[in-house]
Amino acid sequence: MRMSKVKVLFLPDQVTVEVEQGTSLLKAAAVAGISIKSTCGGAGTCGKCLVQVKEGEVRVDSTRNLSPAQQKQGMVLGCQAFAISDVTVEVPADSRLRRHQVLIGELEQPDLGDFPFEPLLRTVTLDLTPPTLDDITVDSQRLLAALAVQGYQPVHLPLRLLQRLPEDLRTAMWKVDVIMSLTDCGWQVIAVEPNNPGKERFGLAVDIGTTTVVVSLHNLANGQTVARAGTYNLQAQYGDDVISRMIHATENKDGLTELQQAVVKTINDLIRQIEKETQINREDIYGLVAAGNTTMSQLFLGISPKYIRLEPYIPTISSVAAVDAAEIGVKIHPRGMVYLIPSVASYVGGDITAGVLATRLTDAEEITLFIDIGTNGEMVLGNRDWLVTCACSAGPAFEGGGITFGMRAMEGAIERVKIDSSTGEIEYKTVQDAKPIGICGSGLIELLGQLRRAGLIDRTGKFTDQVQTDRLRERDGEKEYVLAWAKDSGSGKDIVITESDIKNLIRSKGAVYAGVRSLLRAVDLPLEAIDRIFIAGGFGHYLSIPEAVEIGLLPDVERDKYAYVGNTSLKGAQLALLSVSAWHRARQIGEMMTYIELSAGNTFMDEYVSALFLPHTDLTQFPSVKG
Amino acid sequence: MRMSKVKVLFLPDQVTVEVEQGTSLLKAAAVAGISIKSTCGGAGTCGKCLVQVKEGEVRVDSTRNLSPAQQKQGMVLGCQAFAISDVTVEVPADSRLRRHQVLIGELEQPDLGDFPFEPLLRTVTLDLTPPTLDDITVDSQRLLAALAVQGYQPVHLPLRLLQRLPEDLRTAMWKVDVIMSLTDCGWQVIAVEPNNPGKERFGLAVDIGTTTVVVSLHNLANGQTVARAGTYNLQAQYGDDVISRMIHATENKDGLTELQQAVVKTINDLIRQIEKETQINREDIYGLVAAGNTTMSQLFLGISPKYIRLEPYIPTISSVAAVDAAEIGVKIHPRGMVYLIPSVASYVGGDITAGVLATRLTDAEEITLFIDIGTNGEMVLGNRDWLVTCACSAGPAFEGGGITFGMRAMEGAIERVKIDSSTGEIEYKTVQDAKPIGICGSGLIELLGQLRRAGLIDRTGKFTDQVQTDRLRERDGEKEYVLAWAKDSGSGKDIVITESDIKNLIRSKGAVYAGVRSLLRAVDLPLEAIDRIFIAGGFGHYLSIPEAVEIGLLPDVERDKYAYVGNTSLKGAQLALLSVSAWHRARQIGEMMTYIELSAGNTFMDEYVSALFLPHTDLTQFPSVKG
Ligand code: FES
Ligand code: FES
Repeated sequence: MRMSKVKVLFLPDQVTVEVEQGTSLLKAAAVAGISIKSTCGGAGTCGKCLVQVKEGEVRVDSTRNLSPAQQKQGMVLGCQAFAISDVTVEVPADSRLRRHQVLIGELEQPDLGDFPFEPLLRTVTLDLTPPTLDDITVDSQRLLAALAVQGYQPVHLPLRLLQRLPEDLRTAMWKVDVIMSLTDCGWQVIAVEPNNPGKERFGLAVDIGTTTVVVSLHNLANGQTVARAGTYNLQAQYGDDVISRMIHATENKDGLTELQQAVVKTINDLIRQIEKETQINREDIYGLVAAGNTTMSQLFLGISPKYIRLEPYIPTISSVAAVDAAEIGVKIHPRGMVYLIPSVASYVGGDITAGVLATRLTDAEEITLFIDIGTNGEMVLGNRDWLVTCACSAGPAFEGGGITFGMRAMEGAIERVKIDSSTGEIEYKTVQDAKPIGICGSGLIELLGQLRRAGLIDRTGKFTDQVQTDRLRERDGEKEYVLAWAKDSGSGKDIVITESDIKNLIRSKGAVYAGVRSLLRAVDLPLEAIDRIFIAGGFGHYLSIPEAVEIGLLPDVERDKYAYVGNTSLKGAQLALLSVSAWHRARQIGEMMTYIELSAGNTFMDEYVSALFLPHTDLTQFPSVKG
Repeated sequence: MRMSKVKVLFLPDQVTVEVEQGTSLLKAAAVAGISIKSTCGGAGTCGKCLVQVKEGEVRVDSTRNLSPAQQKQGMVLGCQAFAISDVTVEVPADSRLRRHQVLIGELEQPDLGDFPFEPLLRTVTLDLTPPTLDDITVDSQRLLAALAVQGYQPVHLPLRLLQRLPEDLRTAMWKVDVIMSLTDCGWQVIAVEPNNPGKERFGLAVDIGTTTVVVSLHNLANGQTVARAGTYNLQAQYGDDVISRMIHATENKDGLTELQQAVVKTINDLIRQIEKETQINREDIYGLVAAGNTTMSQLFLGISPKYIRLEPYIPTISSVAAVDAAEIGVKIHPRGMVYLIPSVASYVGGDITAGVLATRLTDAEEITLFIDIGTNGEMVLGNRDWLVTCACSAGPAFEGGGITFGMRAMEGAIERVKIDSSTGEIEYKTVQDAKPIGICGSGLIELLGQLRRAGLIDRTGKFTDQVQTDRLRERDGEKEYVLAWAKDSGSGKDIVITESDIKNLIRSKGAVYAGVRSLLRAVDLPLEAIDRIFIAGGFGHYLSIPEAVEIGLLPDVERDKYAYVGNTSLKGAQLALLSVSAWHRARQIGEMMTYIELSAGNTFMDEYVSALFLPHTDLTQFPSVKG
């Protein structure tokens, strides 16, 4: 069958792309470089990918989530509508992925602490004696012998370098900078360059999040952070969360390749952005260390996550040898190397290992709970002698999924709320102080805590009649609370939270708390044994601890035991990049962690059911919260 | 400039090729798959690439070596004539490279001797326990742990294999054959295949000679030789000897690539031939071990030999880690590995190391001289405690170069001669008993010895008047001896040897003998200290020891000290392929050999000048030869 091509014009962007007839509008938008929300990854269930067909013919496979009025206006789900003729499509602001409030932070300098500065990527300057008739050592041996004198042994010289070695050495008149990277078998030479004391060389630390990717660039001579950048993970066009990406990778012919290339493109785009900002050339970046969850790690390397998803949930890799950047498409020095922080299990990845490394959990005697809340709640409990870890499926609620007006922490997201318990009125703050269009995770947790404190909901999450306010109302047989009226909102719609939304949130917080309890029970320790609680991840920064305890998401311990630790995934990657000792430590940590599989046995289920109240069935666990 | 294409028709082959206007006929012939002699590599000096233009227009750059009569007939040097229009070209039998009497020998079984059978490429069968919720070891660790139990550690799993590992393991239902190759850092996995006890896997041993390439295929389960094949090194189209190949590689833009691809194609062609003969699939060959001189080794890997040729003659590599067959274009298993027997210096290569390995020189107390005569005379002297080696430039005479009717040991080459000293008449034997068209190295040595013995030449190589025969005559002011009359020859021409030819031969033999003397002097030992002399190489088989001693090419020691050892380059490669211990030994030998550079100091020159007599200036060195 010969496919005909059709043109799709996107408005108001005025971008036209040519695609094969029968291509979904969602995919055409991706081709056009327009990012459309697609939480369900194009399954037609999330209803986020709404676009309006202005002209031309489309085939519509499903109208789920669409009101008759919307359909009349030509609104379709981008993933369910396929271009048959040339078409003109309007993409509403609501359907767009906005510029994310990506946590790139200041140009913070890495804190190596006790780790010596000894980067994974090194420059060694050699002043070689040129060969003569009396000294006929072959070129490669001459180089290797000089490196051995400096303590680098064994050193591997790949064929690609051997092929150019004679010219490289003679052009440099035997005075060379040898750039090497540590491998599982000694050192590998990346480049042999003419000695140039003025030349700066760099390494990249990368946090590959499911949602966002953040990188920091470091001078390999002193470890200094010289640039930092962050953006969306372009994989988002294939699904918002890890599960929908796994499905995409497994069930589409090119799915794995698409996801692999998307994350690599994300990183390459960030490098290009840094190139522009700093005048640093990407070829002067000789390697990178990346940390991400297990699925992100495998997708980055082009390894299918299929069996991560299927029982008994087995990843292909944990610790993996450094790979060639070129082999996976990362555009740095053509022979640059890529390192991955090892993961522990299918749902406890390198980002968590990096977190344990960055927070020096294994340096301390104190028992620490490290917790990273996203779609999954991943947590580690332990100290210098032992570490246990688990992951629970918190569901997408904290990231805006499954919540009527849920959204990520982007422009227009309500992130802080305060409810007056006498009037039932609400004050809120949005990201970038834009008009509200939805509510993000930190806002939702605060909202739940405030609703409960104000008596607007009861311990089961049901709305009460205690407070008289017209913000509390019923629509389509379900009770809801209005956060922002249509006139004040950015979308012209009332922003509400419904009783089902609250139920979803309670399930999410219950799962996380049950995870903490299960970990404690696995090592037979009481809540009081926890000396410190570290809250990690992008979400952590915005999380209000009092409200998180109020709703029973986090344990009710002294508030001064809590600390925000920020993006420890990136921090851990930085440490490994800049200190061989830290890199080795990361690998030890990966091996040292005992993974507790929550789906085995009844502990987790019992704990979960008990946690489906606000704050909990067992109020003695939350002495500071009034029931 | 747009190039037009012209057609070149070759007769009597009836092969037409289309080439760019201005292409040399020599190159067009190569494209057509017709091998034309080109000893000088297309420089226009050897005069061997004679062809006849029957029709069409050619541009002729040089008519050197051509008689007016030849020019009248349309004879041109293929390398100096360039197709301007469509042309028809006749290639005379004389100008063709003939099917070489390549020494492939019987399907000889390798003799491992004391070396244990433990191939460089292994199959390990694993019956893995499938993962469960209680045993969530990741796939790669599960495999590596099982290999470690069998003593394989560390093992590297390349990314390309990790990417397919989950499916490979599950398709095989966890019972797999793991094929691994030894690297400088433990083992590297080449393939993970479903267990199949019936499957045979193979490894290849390769002797990369400047002239010929010989391979043998071995079953990795028992070491058995299952096939053997040999052919011309296709690099011959770029020059007959090492020097002209170096020049081609260095002075032509694509020269290195052409030479690299030519030798790889030679090997790939041999593998294809074996595929046809044996029904064995090339993908079941998991690796190869090659031995060749230093230039051949570097060209095989795509490393320029430029600095081998220039003083102080420095190669790029000696010992080199295994490389991916795919990276250099060798078509075996897509992840198969290539090993090279290490070389010692620019003119003492892996073929010599392999020879020392194969002849167990380092096992014995006896002092052995190992000698391989070709364009270079390479020799090793030593025993289990020490090894010295050197190479002397014997010149192309022994391979037929620089000799009026010199040729390689191909069909029609005179290889044995006997001269009656009373009549001056000659008897000869040719390769394949064809009509004589020239004389090869072994024939030349015997001829020289017989001429001397018969008194036809004196000690300086000049013709005498002692014997009355019309075979001795003068042409163009130079004396010559007729080996075969035109009526008996294959080319219709008298086959002769001239006084200049004899001078060239004396230079060659003098250089080899001077090399032997220089080695002895380097370790301060007399001739009598030599317990054994091993003659290696294709040339060796045909060499007549008495005549070689008679002319002063080889030392005058008891004849029973001499032994022919055959193609020890291939034998050494076989040993290394089939025994890790032999592979390690080869590397030790490479490091153990002390290279004596003959161009440093006066020893060699003094010895050389003394050796320019038959047999020698100092007759006491040749007591068995009457002066
Ligand atoms: S409904 Fe289209 S992406 Fe979810
Ligand atoms: S003269 Fe043509 S190849 Fe030598």
